[in-house]
Amino acid sequence: MQQDIVIIGSGNVATHLGLALQQNGHGIRQVYSRTMAHAKELANVLEAQAVDTLDKLNLDADIYIIAVSDQAIPEIITALPQKLRGTVLHTSGSTTMDIFPQDSYRHGVLYPVQTFSKTKAISFDQIPLAIEGSDPSVLGLIHTLASSLSNTVFHCNSIQRMSIHIAAVFACNFTNCLYSIAQEVLHEQGLSFDLIRPLILETAEKALKYDPQTVQTGPAAREDHHILQKHTSFLSDKKSLDYRVSDIYTLMTELIIKSKKKQV
Amino acid sequence: MQQDIVIIGSGNVATHLGLALQQNGHGIRQVYSRTMAHAKELANVLEAQAVDTLDKLNLDADIYIIAVSDQAIPEIITALPQKLRGTVLHTSGSTTMDIFPQDSYRHGVLYPVQTFSKTKAISFDQIPLAIEGSDPSVLGLIHTLASSLSNTVFHCNSIQRMSIHIAAVFACNFTNCLYSIAQEVLHEQGLSFDLIRPLILETAEKALKYDPQTVQTGPAAREDHHILQKHTSFLSDKKSLDYRVSDIYTLMTELIIKSKKKQV
Repeated sequence: MQQDIVIIGSGNVATHLGLALQQNGHGIRQVYSRTMAHAKELANVLEAQAVDTLDKLNLDADIYIIAVSDQAIPEIITALPQKLRGTVLHTSGSTTMDIFPQDSYRHGVLYPVQTFSKTKAISFDQIPLAIEGSDPSVLGLIHTLASSLSNTVFHCNSIQRMSIHIAAVFACNFTNCLYSIAQEVLHEQGLSFDLIRPLILETAEKALKYDPQTVQTGPAAREDHHILQKHTSFLSDKKSLDYRVSDIYTLMTELIIKSKKKQV
Repeated sequence: MQQDIVIIGSGNVATHLGLALQQNGHGIRQVYSRTMAHAKELANVLEAQAVDTLDKLNLDADIYIIAVSDQAIPEIITALPQKLRGTVLHTSGSTTMDIFPQDSYRHGVLYPVQTFSKTKAISFDQIPLAIEGSDPSVLGLIHTLASSLSNTVFHCNSIQRMSIHIAAVFACNFTNCLYSIAQEVLHEQGLSFDLIRPLILETAEKALKYDPQTVQTGPAAREDHHILQKHTSFLSDKKSLDYRVSDIYTLMTELIIKSKKKQV
């Protein structure tokens, strides 16, 4: 069923979600950003009206999607017209449902479990979408909308959704931080990050097929204390590296050794 | 040029390297493992002789490749016949060249920058191979051998090689440990690891195209202290999780915030 949608936000999630909605036959009526140039940029692509104040929102759209940074959600909700006939959704992993006013519009959550960058296209149909709704009919509406975008739509509560977000922080944000550390270690010796790119891909591909616990490799998994000692000395001797890098080495090593022992 | 090769070891590296050598026209003459059953298993695949003591090694092979765990290398080298005419290589990232006796056989290193699992096939031609040799002619021989397996062969010294290994530990072993943590967080809430598999792949694919520093996302990169606080409370309250998990959350968060500030 085609929905008449207002997008609140113009960042990475707003952009990718707006494009996916448009491509799947939904109509984007308005795009809001407090910066008119940003609103216009996305609105042009989505053939929508750009607005930069929330009092200019149409009151009769079907769905209003708040896709802004988690920090900005409360002020958006406070400034949102209370008379909306449609349903208001946010797209945040770690923001609970009770952020919405209880006695006004219908509301819910549509949280895409993925990382979005402006520069990289992504196909929405493989993205798991976690949904939550203020009542069963809202949940049904969100389910229909989400299912028009993705093959994996599932209902979960706010605590579960935050767990998914935390898991995503480890598996995506922190993993990317490890890639940055690796790059720094290589650059310090005049070596290219390209050297470990095949390894990065192989490591991820393994996790798509296997349980990560069972495919853990490396000096920690082998409890090779001689090599572990060499590495920690090397890292703590490098004045150019943040002290946290060797702390992270030590903690991750301890965790891997402990997990291996539990498996035996 | 086809080489006559002895493989010392029967683990993941020995297996994948032996197969790649055989597929590229080299002859594997012998496979050594201290456990005869292991030696036989790999030797059968490689159409080689299985041996379980090092005094049974042929003395006139071209190349002897020590592909055992780093811990086991010293005892192999001590027990190796000193009269070998060929060149002895090890495949370790963090073992320096001076582990070899200086006045006996020619020696060097062929370190594949990749993670190997018994169950997962891998194409060797995309694996960067770091090489080192005891003299220019040995280096030339190893370069020719390595180039028959891979499109990316490069010479580096023992310190650089250890840096690559350390970078690999962060980008592969520790990344996989983060996947395990993510899995544990999901399972604790009755959720499937499948939910973040698309995210894992996308994160790796981004690192293949972009500089990881520039594509860092998440609550730490946005300095969203409200969300960061929620996550750390959640993690430290979970008695089933190792205390190191929330310590890692804190350290990685601090590192991401600091890196973002340096970029600005």
